Amino acid sequence: MGKTVGILGGMGPLATVDLFAKIVQCTPAAVDQDHLRIIVDNNPQIPPRVEAIIQGAESPLPSMARSARLLEGAGADFIVMPCNTAHYWIGELRQAVKVPVLDMIEAAAAYIARRRDAAAGPTLLLATAATIRTGLYQKAFAVRNLTLVTPNGAEQKVLDAAVRQVKAGAVADNPYLGELNAMVDRFAAGGTQAMLAGCTEVPLLFPFLGGPEKYDATAILAQAAVETALA
Amino acid sequence: MGKTVGILGGMGPLATVDLFAKIVQCTPAAVDQDHLRIIVDNNPQIPPRVEAIIQGAESPLPSMARSARLLEGAGADFIVMPCNTAHYWIGELRQAVKVPVLDMIEAAAAYIARRRDAAAGPTLLLATAATIRTGLYQKAFAVRNLTLVTPNGAEQKVLDAAVRQVKAGAVADNPYLGELNAMVDRFAAGGTQAMLAGCTEVPLLFPFLGGPEKYDATAILAQAAVETALA
Repeated sequence: MGKTVGILGGMGPLATVDLFAKIVQCTPAAVDQDHLRIIVDNNPQIPPRVEAIIQGAESPLPSMARSARLLEGAGADFIVMPCNTAHYWIGELRQAVKVPVLDMIEAAAAYIARRRDAAAGPTLLLATAATIRTGLYQKAFAVRNLTLVTPNGAEQKVLDAAVRQVKAGAVADNPYLGELNAMVDRFAAGGTQAMLAGCTEVPLLFPFLGGPEKYDATAILAQAAVETALA
Repeated sequence: MGKTVGILGGMGPLATVDLFAKIVQCTPAAVDQDHLRIIVDNNPQIPPRVEAIIQGAESPLPSMARSARLLEGAGADFIVMPCNTAHYWIGELRQAVKVPVLDMIEAAAAYIARRRDAAAGPTLLLATAATIRTGLYQKAFAVRNLTLVTPNGAEQKVLDAAVRQVKAGAVADNPYLGELNAMVDRFAAGGTQAMLAGCTEVPLLFPFLGGPEKYDATAILAQAAVETALA
């Protein structure tokens, strides 16, 4: 039967669908009843994370905590959160509930550390400027002797704009796919052999991107959720 | 901001992901905060609907009612249910909660009635044998002077098996795609100009099927949910 998964979602909605789908797809199941119970609070009214970090706008933490408590009250045994930037508040969020909150950033760094030799070269981090500013990925990689590289200033602006377009519904028709491909090709040409979607909107664009080997923090979190639920 | 949507899901999980995705995709939104709040109870432990109808096995109604009350308690302003067969119990389910439960079968029949002239010929219903046995679609079509046709006995067995395979995760690799295509081609050759996915697993197979014009009850329900939420 497994534990009940709580998805603290809405940041953004398509990324929430993506995590939900990936959990279902990686659950070993022959009939409906083999699948996990998953409660989703897709709460897009949580204040924007990027603006809170970059501009000091309203903190999303109180809304995140209310969603987490709603999930806990509805029966979630643990919580996952498909938004890398929101992990800036994970310490305080964990204090708001009694159930565990899995850490996508730690899970992604640990996954890459298990699969890549530290000598294999840097990983290109595709995350929002706000996530990069928090230093969460840099720290999680550094403690594992893994190297991260990030887009240059102009490329990061393109990536942030592409993420906003996904939040508005533009995936296959995202207007920044050409510029993103130019960026990942530039890194590949420079020897970067891996890239990590460290923003939950980014893996939605992976089918349309070339570049180095792709790692997807959302898929890694989905796998961690299934393992936690079935443990 | 809109009303909060409750999805009584898990019947099956991929169909639940599909409805959730379709609601997000048809919501007019430029940023996360324009999207709808959606609470999902993906509860795959609800007893199987087909077996309850065909074999008189355990009724899913008590579990469905608990999920509906959970959604209502969590703040859902109305409920949608991505399982056509489960609509057999919609009358009793509606008595279990104070909030409205939208009717996917009525919504689909009304949608097709608005778009197709009654003289345009029959619609092929792709539903489980259990849904067909309930007569829900036949009744919803008959009151609108629309004609339905259904697969023959052997074809229906293939369709039911294909649906079970989707519930086990087989979509692009569904082993029944060839036989399903032979069936829809047979109906198309016989003059059937429309087919309706009246089982929420079926639209997941639509990208791999030819045949007559496709109508998708899940997509119609998603549109109805967005209209209800924004009304």
